[in-house]
Amino acid sequence: MIVTLNDAAEIETVRRALVERGLWVRPLQEPGSSGRVQFLVEEGSASVPAEDLRAIRGVEAVATGEVCYPRVRAQPPTVEIHGVRIGPTPDAAPLIMAGPCSVESKEQIRAIATRLGRLGVRFLRGGAYKARTRPDSFQGHGAAALGWLRDAADEQGMSVVTEAVGVEELEPVAEVTDLVQIGSRNMHNTPLLKAAGRCGKPVLLKRGMAATLDEWLHAAEYCLSHGAPAVLFCERGIRSFDPSTRNVLDLGAAVLLAHVYRQPVIVDPSHAAGRRDLIAPLCYAALAAGAAGLMLETHDDPGRALSDGPQALHADEIAAIVGAVRRAESRYSRRSS
Amino acid sequence: MIVTLNDAAEIETVRRALVERGLWVRPLQEPGSSGRVQFLVEEGSASVPAEDLRAIRGVEAVATGEVCYPRVRAQPPTVEIHGVRIGPTPDAAPLIMAGPCSVESKEQIRAIATRLGRLGVRFLRGGAYKARTRPDSFQGHGAAALGWLRDAADEQGMSVVTEAVGVEELEPVAEVTDLVQIGSRNMHNTPLLKAAGRCGKPVLLKRGMAATLDEWLHAAEYCLSHGAPAVLFCERGIRSFDPSTRNVLDLGAAVLLAHVYRQPVIVDPSHAAGRRDLIAPLCYAALAAGAAGLMLETHDDPGRALSDGPQALHADEIAAIVGAVRRAESRYSRRSS
Amino acid sequence: MIVTLNDAAEIETVRRALVERGLWVRPLQEPGSSGRVQFLVEEGSASVPAEDLRAIRGVEAVATGEVCYPRVRAQPPTVEIHGVRIGPTPDAAPLIMAGPCSVESKEQIRAIATRLGRLGVRFLRGGAYKARTRPDSFQGHGAAALGWLRDAADEQGMSVVTEAVGVEELEPVAEVTDLVQIGSRNMHNTPLLKAAGRCGKPVLLKRGMAATLDEWLHAAEYCLSHGAPAVLFCERGIRSFDPSTRNVLDLGAAVLLAHVYRQPVIVDPSHAAGRRDLIAPLCYAALAAGAAGLMLETHDDPGRALSDGPQALHADEIAAIVGAVRRAESRYSRRSS
Amino acid sequence: MIVTLNDAAEIETVRRALVERGLWVRPLQEPGSSGRVQFLVEEGSASVPAEDLRAIRGVEAVATGEVCYPRVRAQPPTVEIHGVRIGPTPDAAPLIMAGPCSVESKEQIRAIATRLGRLGVRFLRGGAYKARTRPDSFQGHGAAALGWLRDAADEQGMSVVTEAVGVEELEPVAEVTDLVQIGSRNMHNTPLLKAAGRCGKPVLLKRGMAATLDEWLHAAEYCLSHGAPAVLFCERGIRSFDPSTRNVLDLGAAVLLAHVYRQPVIVDPSHAAGRRDLIAPLCYAALAAGAAGLMLETHDDPGRALSDGPQALHADEIAAIVGAVRRAESRYSRRSS
Repeated sequence: MIVTLNDAAEIETVRRALVERGLWVRPLQEPGSSGRVQFLVEEGSASVPAEDLRAIRGVEAVATGEVCYPRVRAQPPTVEIHGVRIGPTPDAAPLIMAGPCSVESKEQIRAIATRLGRLGVRFLRGGAYKARTRPDSFQGHGAAALGWLRDAADEQGMSVVTEAVGVEELEPVAEVTDLVQIGSRNMHNTPLLKAAGRCGKPVLLKRGMAATLDEWLHAAEYCLSHGAPAVLFCERGIRSFDPSTRNVLDLGAAVLLAHVYRQPVIVDPSHAAGRRDLIAPLCYAALAAGAAGLMLETHDDPGRALSDGPQALHADEIAAIVGAVRRAESRYSRRSS
Repeated sequence: MIVTLNDAAEIETVRRALVERGLWVRPLQEPGSSGRVQFLVEEGSASVPAEDLRAIRGVEAVATGEVCYPRVRAQPPTVEIHGVRIGPTPDAAPLIMAGPCSVESKEQIRAIATRLGRLGVRFLRGGAYKARTRPDSFQGHGAAALGWLRDAADEQGMSVVTEAVGVEELEPVAEVTDLVQIGSRNMHNTPLLKAAGRCGKPVLLKRGMAATLDEWLHAAEYCLSHGAPAVLFCERGIRSFDPSTRNVLDLGAAVLLAHVYRQPVIVDPSHAAGRRDLIAPLCYAALAAGAAGLMLETHDDPGRALSDGPQALHADEIAAIVGAVRRAESRYSRRSS
Repeated sequence: MIVTLNDAAEIETVRRALVERGLWVRPLQEPGSSGRVQFLVEEGSASVPAEDLRAIRGVEAVATGEVCYPRVRAQPPTVEIHGVRIGPTPDAAPLIMAGPCSVESKEQIRAIATRLGRLGVRFLRGGAYKARTRPDSFQGHGAAALGWLRDAADEQGMSVVTEAVGVEELEPVAEVTDLVQIGSRNMHNTPLLKAAGRCGKPVLLKRGMAATLDEWLHAAEYCLSHGAPAVLFCERGIRSFDPSTRNVLDLGAAVLLAHVYRQPVIVDPSHAAGRRDLIAPLCYAALAAGAAGLMLETHDDPGRALSDGPQALHADEIAAIVGAVRRAESRYSRRSS
Repeated sequence: MIVTLNDAAEIETVRRALVERGLWVRPLQEPGSSGRVQFLVEEGSASVPAEDLRAIRGVEAVATGEVCYPRVRAQPPTVEIHGVRIGPTPDAAPLIMAGPCSVESKEQIRAIATRLGRLGVRFLRGGAYKARTRPDSFQGHGAAALGWLRDAADEQGMSVVTEAVGVEELEPVAEVTDLVQIGSRNMHNTPLLKAAGRCGKPVLLKRGMAATLDEWLHAAEYCLSHGAPAVLFCERGIRSFDPSTRNVLDLGAAVLLAHVYRQPVIVDPSHAAGRRDLIAPLCYAALAAGAAGLMLETHDDPGRALSDGPQALHADEIAAIVGAVRRAESRYSRRSS
């Protein structure tokens, strides 16, 4: 935003009023002249409506850019999928999506689903197609895995979330899934975002490894403008310089989306941390930050997992997390913002 | 760590046992030879004692580096300052340190201290010396401010935390403060770390803007090896590519320090977010992650603040946060890891 | 690599020999025991063959991982496309690929091609399909643009390089192009990498915005393992924290690829800098670093460009760069490594 | 900058004129109103004088911030130290500063100086005080090393550059050195910057590990405003996410400083790459980018180096680089911008 002062304005008084409202401002002026003073509101400032600034004595005009992310802004804060309400409002309980990184066999996914169903987990996740760094790594069991996943979920009355790694995989994925996952590596893949929108299912949109919030929101615009009924944002850690964790979980971005943009945010601490011993506290932190839900990797035998075994939670670990979330349900101060 | 297998080992069985324990491993071998297989445990793996790996059938040896951070490891998890216990243990209540970015006048700091005292805040923060990006920015009121700060705290029975920006400022700072703050810009300033250690007061060590956890822990070693009775670690956000927040609050690092290293961690969401509208949820997230306390900037008139006004919390905002933390005291699941 | 010492080794002597060869090493040992000393060679070390280390007195074994990037390693250093040799060898002249960001009309691309042809530029670039951050931005003229681009190049006897933004666009792109470009946003898009390989044309593989060298090399493996006759690596800047340039041009990565891996590297300073006033010196730096060629954006009327106008070089600017490169052709010390 | 249009302006025509000049612009306007259109010129745009924009038909006013970095801007582009001219102008030959990471003994530094003197190197570098990550690492021989360094340089008629790691070390350092080095870890250490300015010697200011260009320029302002006769900027790599090199050498920043700000830039590829096998090509790239000189680590016996051995150049390696630079002296197109 650009705030232009009128000729009679007391510059310092206006500056104070802007700072008071949480804005980082930089004064600009036609140099060596009697030109009007303008304050440039910098990125990283608190979100304040332009009307509030226009009301400040001494302000002549407040220029803003075009409305950004109109379709995201128009999303209702709460999404309902198969009777499960997902969103930042106090009456939506934290949602847990859980399952293995890869769907490895009919038996594996069935065993995991049974276990999760008993815990009350409502969404079953599992990869049928895998986007892997190396061409020689396991790339998923494809269409067969989709069937196993759907059957396992149905037996437990669970919903399914699974990833489409390319436009070609969208059709079979959309046929079985309740929520189409777009992975980090594909957040910038605009043909896929468009196709995901067209398939008519809600989208779980993971943040790109080094995507800005602006790019992430525009990626959601791609989905929504091509027909997606809803987009859930999934924060899964961004790339940084410190090898002590795989990625850096950016809960500030989750807070921004949940509390300022009023969007449903799912947090995936498994991929963020990459370390099993950090996952539980990150779950509680994510919910306290305002996340609408969690996405967790679990495996009945992590040592035999075909991918991401070291970060898969053991059966007892996920049971402990689900239990703690349930007990805390009414306590996490998501009402606080 | 390097895990060397014996000649009889079933390689795949050992690999599974390692992955099962949360380790990311890479197999290495003398190429084209009958050399022994070795698994390199990569950074970012869960923390597992070497003894546990030695017990795996097929493992011949587990080589580790020298003990890292011996003085940090020897720190008790809970620090006591003037009767206030700070640490990750369930019986230490979350600590709140609050105050203005800069101590601007005797009256300002007194008014703020009075207000905070009434809220039950036990630590008063405020900068007497300021490390600013620009040479023409306000650099703090120096020695005079130290006196005002101490007096204001004493009137309320509060403890003081304030920053020493250089070796020369350490002596006057140490005379009045209960906790010596080392700022982000100085985390790599080894002469200052040594001097801070020598002054005999506990140290609040802020993480450098792009410091790895390893560098941060070594900085604490500098303080402890030169005499500091205790070091509190203060996470305040790291530098990243997204301008939507000033910095990225790395709660994964806070979890790692609190739950794996068992260290007292203070989280400063004010500098991390740089946006007033994100601070409250980040406070709750930090405590849920296992932080022992919070450091918050507040001002009675943020518009007139001589530094960092846009991120300073208003009186009613900090009262709301302190209240919410207090009410949640027994509820934040810091026992959960 | 892991270097294991024998029982008779003088540890310090071996350490020196390793450091002498440019290796960052970390000693590990079974703690409190008489276990053998092992040196872990850290990432970021100079590239030294394992055989050289085995020859050091006191070394018993040198374990390495599987051969990484076997197909990249097997690529000849010089690629020939339509009689133009591209590569890091002294006898291949620096290659310049130039053209507009987007192919905007038949007339536009023809005018630009004519101008570039006269300068001796051998490759015409231009986008027919565009991957844009915002869904409302211009997305390219598609199939029509491909025809205009091919015709314009043919008139000047130039080769064509253009991007396929999705699997569906690959077929029409492959039909007209001499070199298939995979953009930054798609470097992790494995279905597209596979499809690009299958189309049988050489691939220009741009580095992802936050891709490690390892991920970039694996992306090339995807292309090569699916049939690509050659992959050229295009460094175009990585994401960082400093807004003074759009991206950070990582010439260290270009040096590593060109001098250590002996791969053909193309540098794109237009996208890296995003600032027209930095492009010329970055071109000279890239070639001095060992780049086999440059990819440059130019426009006859940058103000009217439908995308990336501010970084498009004016006609006189690109003429100056091409002239300078030509004059310096025999002088850039690409022989020097 | 903010460009405000007059009521009669054709908005699109003005936009084109701005883009034509290399500016990334964003239109803003009082929403739903007849308010004037304003273009915000974004960071990362080409550097264009405000006067040029005022001359565009339809532009009413161009507001700019206060003059940034006035003392840096007032620096002459060429600095002279002991008869050696350093700067981006064509008549100043590339300067080479070389020597060991640490001054380890009288004999060591003398042997290295003799060797470098014969190659025609004019500046001898070497650390007497070392800022190390770990408290147990070698911290330098201090005052004794300063004497050895000065004597060794004098014997060869060389100038000295060495680092002051703290305010206390400044006096002894300033007594012997011709150029005071401020290290990366201290770029944000404002008391040290002030003290360095006061000592009256020119300053070699290394960029902080994650410092923006803006912060780096302000750090120079600190030195210059406290009396430094000149500041040389030393780019040594910034922190990033890719472990294949220790740091990322940001030659875009070097180009920006050398060609846009007309400042003397020294490039240190040794610390940037951390890999001996990349250093030579990075030297040539740095000079082609417009660097005024190079800073290189060399050691007569890298295996015995007390610090940074793996990146120290062998005697023959540095001789080859110095020779190549010398032969290319008239050829590197630093005139080209």
